Amino acid sequence: MTDVLARADEEQFLADFRASAEFGRTDKNGVDRRAGSEAHGALRDWFQCLAEDAGFTVHTDQIGNIFALKEWIPGADYVVVGSHLDSQAKAGPYDGGYGVIAAFHAALATDRTIEAETITPRFNIAVVDFFNEEGARFHPSMMGSAVYTGHAKAEKALAAVDPDTGLAVAEVLQATGRGGTSPVPITPVAYAEIHNEQGRRLEDSGTPVGVVDRNWWARTIPITVEGEQSHAGGLMEDRRDALAATAEVLLAAERLPGILGDQRNICTISRLDIEPNVPGALAREVRFTIDMRAEDKADLDRGREILREQLGQLAASRPVEIHWGQEGVREQQTFRPEAIELAESAAAAHGFSTMRLGSRIGHDALWMTTIVPSVLLFMPSVDGISHAEREYSTDQHMLGGLKTLTTVTQELVTGALVQSAS
Amino acid sequence: MTDVLARADEEQFLADFRASAEFGRTDKNGVDRRAGSEAHGALRDWFQCLAEDAGFTVHTDQIGNIFALKEWIPGADYVVVGSHLDSQAKAGPYDGGYGVIAAFHAALATDRTIEAETITPRFNIAVVDFFNEEGARFHPSMMGSAVYTGHAKAEKALAAVDPDTGLAVAEVLQATGRGGTSPVPITPVAYAEIHNEQGRRLEDSGTPVGVVDRNWWARTIPITVEGEQSHAGGLMEDRRDALAATAEVLLAAERLPGILGDQRNICTISRLDIEPNVPGALAREVRFTIDMRAEDKADLDRGREILREQLGQLAASRPVEIHWGQEGVREQQTFRPEAIELAESAAAAHGFSTMRLGSRIGHDALWMTTIVPSVLLFMPSVDGISHAEREYSTDQHMLGGLKTLTTVTQELVTGALVQSAS
Repeated sequence: MTDVLARADEEQFLADFRASAEFGRTDKNGVDRRAGSEAHGALRDWFQCLAEDAGFTVHTDQIGNIFALKEWIPGADYVVVGSHLDSQAKAGPYDGGYGVIAAFHAALATDRTIEAETITPRFNIAVVDFFNEEGARFHPSMMGSAVYTGHAKAEKALAAVDPDTGLAVAEVLQATGRGGTSPVPITPVAYAEIHNEQGRRLEDSGTPVGVVDRNWWARTIPITVEGEQSHAGGLMEDRRDALAATAEVLLAAERLPGILGDQRNICTISRLDIEPNVPGALAREVRFTIDMRAEDKADLDRGREILREQLGQLAASRPVEIHWGQEGVREQQTFRPEAIELAESAAAAHGFSTMRLGSRIGHDALWMTTIVPSVLLFMPSVDGISHAEREYSTDQHMLGGLKTLTTVTQELVTGALVQSAS
Repeated sequence: MTDVLARADEEQFLADFRASAEFGRTDKNGVDRRAGSEAHGALRDWFQCLAEDAGFTVHTDQIGNIFALKEWIPGADYVVVGSHLDSQAKAGPYDGGYGVIAAFHAALATDRTIEAETITPRFNIAVVDFFNEEGARFHPSMMGSAVYTGHAKAEKALAAVDPDTGLAVAEVLQATGRGGTSPVPITPVAYAEIHNEQGRRLEDSGTPVGVVDRNWWARTIPITVEGEQSHAGGLMEDRRDALAATAEVLLAAERLPGILGDQRNICTISRLDIEPNVPGALAREVRFTIDMRAEDKADLDRGREILREQLGQLAASRPVEIHWGQEGVREQQTFRPEAIELAESAAAAHGFSTMRLGSRIGHDALWMTTIVPSVLLFMPSVDGISHAEREYSTDQHMLGGLKTLTTVTQELVTGALVQSAS
């Protein structure tokens, strides 16, 4: 196979990616581009400018998803490629940002092959930047793709509030010039996304391309520990300290995967809302979410029962009440076999070996695959670091992923998965 | 002894106290008047108005302490009575607020007896509202009295920053109309303060008046637990979770008084600063302060060594670093025997029994007693609840305390402790 990217195209991609990493840059070379922040808004404006310069038409939908459209065949349906430009607090620039810039360059490369009449398109292309994939400020995560695919209501998502600033999604969209628009007027037929792995299976095995075949089950359990506020100078025996009780829940959550046996299972508490959180008065209330992920649903269910029992014992042994909120379950999605095979063939055409991977982590592709045939590619991440400033992938990793995504994109616009799915 | 307060004076005091409880009132009948907040500023303006209406001259000093002065003898020194109008987050109106309103009414009653020529003053009177006794926003607590007595520098206190809003003391003083003033031009000779007990020794024993003879030793230890931020979907074995490690410190602190044996010893962690505190990424850093209080310094020192050892073991057993910051020690102050006896005589003159109490909790009187003879009175608090909206004292409790404080004040302005101290 001839290279899908000339050397100059590769260099332009790397330059664009590095430029994107300047937005919200931290002093340790990470980025902080939480959804709806000033830095996030500025990057999105820059992306729109880049796309418009390349002849794309840009549309922002009602939940702030940005679609850069190129219409080769008037009236035809669209292949969608993309990811998200928002980040976690103090994260790396690869998570999401790489996926959008790579999608844009895959679309540019595809456009060049169409211009050169090397391929004949059956569909048009849309490069998407989904809003608030991370959920760092606004619950739930994968918000934009959930609304786009009909798994969440736009009205409810727009009303979600950042607990730290009190601002709603609708307000931050307005403030960043993305408020009050309408659904994108295209019909999608397929989706492709590339992401850094956020784990080290590819790196450990020296595999340049991962193909995601399914995601893990995930369960979120909102918990409120209710004690009573009292003076930090009061006697130990009189206390109803919600924070000390929460400490026991933190350790119970951490122990859970060990009890379940399969060390690939995970259980996490990473945010606490403590009331009043002052030096002089004991916590009257602590709110947090337990986030469990397991490959097998049986583990997820057994984990839930173990926590139920342990939290019940805790509430009986301490003068606090523990309230178990409404659980959320992210179901397992399996990607279509023909989509997985298409991705593997695309990688093989460039001489890249591949590995099929389950994803413990949510991605926009998990919602997209519920409505259209979808491909989710991973590229390696050094040490598997993610959601941290140290996140890093080499240029070689990024270019290998981009080439594979470009070939996938070219296959999709010529009708690959739609033919086989119809 | 004839009553120091007529029925109408008592009713006016209760009305003024209830009015003060309206400022920063919460929906559960508590108050939230953290230092430098709008509600705190409004209450201080109201207090100034009340004092000026009664013929006092009001002066705000360089750290925002408010002094309401009444000069009976031109050029004479001053007896100071007072407490603080700031509160904890969601606290009760008695803690501090009762002390200032009671001091004001003790001064009014003293003024009446001087007008009636029942007593002949040797000193003038100042009613003080010390700034930021609570330390709910700005470290350290007892800030205003520390600066006034020379135990803290005004410049450093003015630069203290509220971690939640990023505002400095100087800024909130300016915003509430208390910025940029000068030391109060008076010389103090004695101090008296009344406070609700914040414990239940008076209530349990049916004693209407407590006389504080000393405070407890207190040690604050700032701790930083440093892990590494990473993806909440990452494997357990790869984690350096600062929050899970902090959970172990929370439980170690809670266990400490039990290990020391004396169950009156206390150890508290009530505020955590978690970075980044988001749903999708593990905590890279948690900062907090361990607050230990003990009657005997030996317990405080032994507690420190036990924590040192336990935290050392914790840092060795988990992939985190634990940084031990600069400790603060609040030394034990003992009130002068003649001041304690004066307070006991004043209570006895009204037929009130008294109890000598140590205070686990800091009060402005602890700084004042380092520069002038000082009296610290307690009145009972129902169930000993404090720093909570449920804090409550009866009208009878409040009036008993006010009468005792009034008699103490009259003794002080006629030279009681200054004579015996000179």
